[in-house]
Amino acid sequence: MNFPSKLIEEAVIEISKLPGIGKKSALRMALHLLKRDESQTLLLADALTAMRTKTTYCKQCHNISDEELCLICSSPRRDTSVICIVEDTRDVLAIENTAQYRGLYHILGGIISPLMGIGPNDLHIESLIRRVEQNAEIQEIILALSPTMEGDTTAFYLQKKLKPFGKKISTIARGIPIGGDLEYADEVTLGRSIISRVSYE
Amino acid sequence: MNFPSKLIEEAVIEISKLPGIGKKSALRMALHLLKRDESQTLLLADALTAMRTKTTYCKQCHNISDEELCLICSSPRRDTSVICIVEDTRDVLAIENTAQYRGLYHILGGIISPLMGIGPNDLHIESLIRRVEQNAEIQEIILALSPTMEGDTTAFYLQKKLKPFGKKISTIARGIPIGGDLEYADEVTLGRSIISRVSYE
Repeated sequence: MNFPSKLIEEAVIEISKLPGIGKKSALRMALHLLKRDESQTLLLADALTAMRTKTTYCKQCHNISDEELCLICSSPRRDTSVICIVEDTRDVLAIENTAQYRGLYHILGGIISPLMGIGPNDLHIESLIRRVEQNAEIQEIILALSPTMEGDTTAFYLQKKLKPFGKKISTIARGIPIGGDLEYADEVTLGRSIISRVSYE
Repeated sequence: MNFPSKLIEEAVIEISKLPGIGKKSALRMALHLLKRDESQTLLLADALTAMRTKTTYCKQCHNISDEELCLICSSPRRDTSVICIVEDTRDVLAIENTAQYRGLYHILGGIISPLMGIGPNDLHIESLIRRVEQNAEIQEIILALSPTMEGDTTAFYLQKKLKPFGKKISTIARGIPIGGDLEYADEVTLGRSIISRVSYE
């Protein structure tokens, strides 16, 4: 593309490094910013800079945080007897949006994946074990990992590591999605939903 | 969404103001930047700020420019006898990418649209007329506006305004897109392609 201005070209190159953004969308965004008030671009640039330079990670759960302890870990209204183990921050947001969970989290920062060269030592597993060891009030650990090969491997590894502490260890239910059609469910999911059937009280 | 950090929330709000970006994509971009090196975010923020605060508009064609005259207007290799009139910068880029046009441009900054309250005085039409008046070397004016009601209205208005100068006035051809199938062409386009048929030399 022949850009009319070097400055736009540089902005487009930087914008198109974002995930899911190609050159055309980046150009559209650049032209949008040029049409809007200057303050809007400055707000965006400042927000990005502040986010990147000032956020840190919660020293307890490894979630992104503005302070030493994240808003969830420092909240007095959370149930400190349950820890939900997830891969990353996006999973925390997804679970928070369900409004069905009031416990704490522990972010692994990835999952065990021999193919990608990610082993247990690359994840926040050591700190999880220390956390479980040092906090007697923890009664249950929920594994909320993706139902993939890597997710299952990680869950298996964690179960083995956490077993000695004698806490209840559970995993989120796998089954037919709500609104899903039995006919179109894959056989593995359907089979699992029969094995993990729930009795009516 | 319950964000784990106020700073991320602010960044996501600013990012999601960009066209075509919702909250979920904005969050994905924010988390992407958090994972990458700090310098990448700073480069992006700086590029956006520089683009918005330092670019200006070419005093001749109104294209976005780093200098008083844009790269096209100041190029000695462009044909100064032809001006192509377009709606905005994106159209210039689209035409430049065809590599079929070596003349100059004039950016209207919009099209006449009574519904949106945009009249001829809101566009760079006055400066176009002065430009045609003052530059005797201009021999042809190409109208490259969208084939919509507003585009046609604008083209009609410009033809009337430019006629007194005795220059050749043309419009880009409307017809069947190359690679398009006759069977699926709409009747208006197909009809126009018959009226505007081109003889083999």
